[in-house]
Amino acid sequence: MSLDELFQQIKKKKSFLCVGLDVDIDKLPSTLSPNPGSIFEFSKQIIDAVAPYAVAIKPNLAFFEVYGSKGWEILELLMNYIDNNYPELFTIADAKRGDIGTSSEKYAHAFFKHLKFNAVTVSPYMGQDSVEPFLMYPDKHVILLSSTSNPGSQDFQIQSGNENNLFEKVIQKSQTWSHSEKLWYVVGATRSSHLKQIRKLVPHNYLLVPGIGVQGGHLSDVVEYGINEQCGLIVNASRSIIYSSNGSDFAHAAMTRARSLQFGMESFLKKHELVK
Amino acid sequence: MSLDELFQQIKKKKSFLCVGLDVDIDKLPSTLSPNPGSIFEFSKQIIDAVAPYAVAIKPNLAFFEVYGSKGWEILELLMNYIDNNYPELFTIADAKRGDIGTSSEKYAHAFFKHLKFNAVTVSPYMGQDSVEPFLMYPDKHVILLSSTSNPGSQDFQIQSGNENNLFEKVIQKSQTWSHSEKLWYVVGATRSSHLKQIRKLVPHNYLLVPGIGVQGGHLSDVVEYGINEQCGLIVNASRSIIYSSNGSDFAHAAMTRARSLQFGMESFLKKHELVK
Repeated sequence: MSLDELFQQIKKKKSFLCVGLDVDIDKLPSTLSPNPGSIFEFSKQIIDAVAPYAVAIKPNLAFFEVYGSKGWEILELLMNYIDNNYPELFTIADAKRGDIGTSSEKYAHAFFKHLKFNAVTVSPYMGQDSVEPFLMYPDKHVILLSSTSNPGSQDFQIQSGNENNLFEKVIQKSQTWSHSEKLWYVVGATRSSHLKQIRKLVPHNYLLVPGIGVQGGHLSDVVEYGINEQCGLIVNASRSIIYSSNGSDFAHAAMTRARSLQFGMESFLKKHELVK
Repeated sequence: MSLDELFQQIKKKKSFLCVGLDVDIDKLPSTLSPNPGSIFEFSKQIIDAVAPYAVAIKPNLAFFEVYGSKGWEILELLMNYIDNNYPELFTIADAKRGDIGTSSEKYAHAFFKHLKFNAVTVSPYMGQDSVEPFLMYPDKHVILLSSTSNPGSQDFQIQSGNENNLFEKVIQKSQTWSHSEKLWYVVGATRSSHLKQIRKLVPHNYLLVPGIGVQGGHLSDVVEYGINEQCGLIVNASRSIIYSSNGSDFAHAAMTRARSLQFGMESFLKKHELVK
């Protein structure tokens, strides 16, 4: 999916919401049996419920991989389901991969060709040759970790002295690489001052913003500092949507929560004259 | 496997060799059919051939994941094969994972419990809470990326100004975390000056050193700067061993190459009076 097509979806649905699928069998509603197979059924019902209000879906690889090949089979089924029923949804593999070139080529194939994701999250630690193999695919997108929303983000992403912060260096350096127009960046919603700095460095690139909801970030700050002429933001919520209810009404509760977030986003899109 | 048990294996085999399984079906010998199923057969024969000369085996996740659930099934078969036939081999999942705490917990379970690896490589970018879930398993080991051997390692791991390099900060900071005795570090064989600095920072921790062979690092430099009282080094070779021959004699050629590396290692272990 191209960025233009994504922006069309944002305008059509009046939403820049991404729903993260961090599906833990210990948190499934009691109406579903607590086994890996139920992850597909739960995810399918969640997707059906939120599809009118979300433009993107972000399966978290860790929550599939924990079941080994069985988990990967479930992810394959799920990607087929989305491809067949909701081709307009932008799909993000939250995988945080990154290795020397020959290995990153294999990871890129796994996520872009085998699983047909539109985008994948990548860790920048190993530098240019670890990221470039992901940038070789037309209409696919690479979302580099920059300033993440977790407590440990303070350990290395921030620099104590007068030097630039690592999260800024990641953006500046990666913008000099070939196909840098395909790069997005992860910026936690809990880091609004970083968001402001990052938006200055990359006025046109899309940003993936996790940390709304359970992690405590505010949508108004995210929009104030992050929005651009093509929206330029995809804001993710995972647990606060998919675990809205642990009863048999879980899908309806997820829909209600997604609709409420979409409603807020619509008002910001109107305010910034991106939709009528 | 505990570090004491690993050191016993090093002394018994007079070797600190790790064989990396980066098995590409395009590079399989012509006697094996070029399909994912042959990866198991090839890897099995390589392991049988090198087991007398290597103390560790390092499957590279990218080369399995490229085939999705099928690739993961092959890895599961392979780990069962090692567990049943070579329980003395130290197994490293070269996975370079790392995510917020709840996700890293799932990855740790995947590699330590489901696949029963002894160690996993982890990317430090997201900091303490992304690494700690891996440190919770008794007798399991966490190998943090520090100074890698690829060209892109220059992009972020090295600092241009007077500040400490990122690869040093990773070591210093991570040594303050709970269970830091379980931490190993990746240091490329092509970075002998970094190896020297790192050994000063962590005199007792094990280091995983890739980059011998195709990438051009020298064993003598690695030993000079890296060896400690418990050896403290596991040196990896992948392509230079497993693709020693592309004929039907591939396993024998891999054995010859592994034996030659082991022979060099034995002389260094003797020189440093770790074996007789």
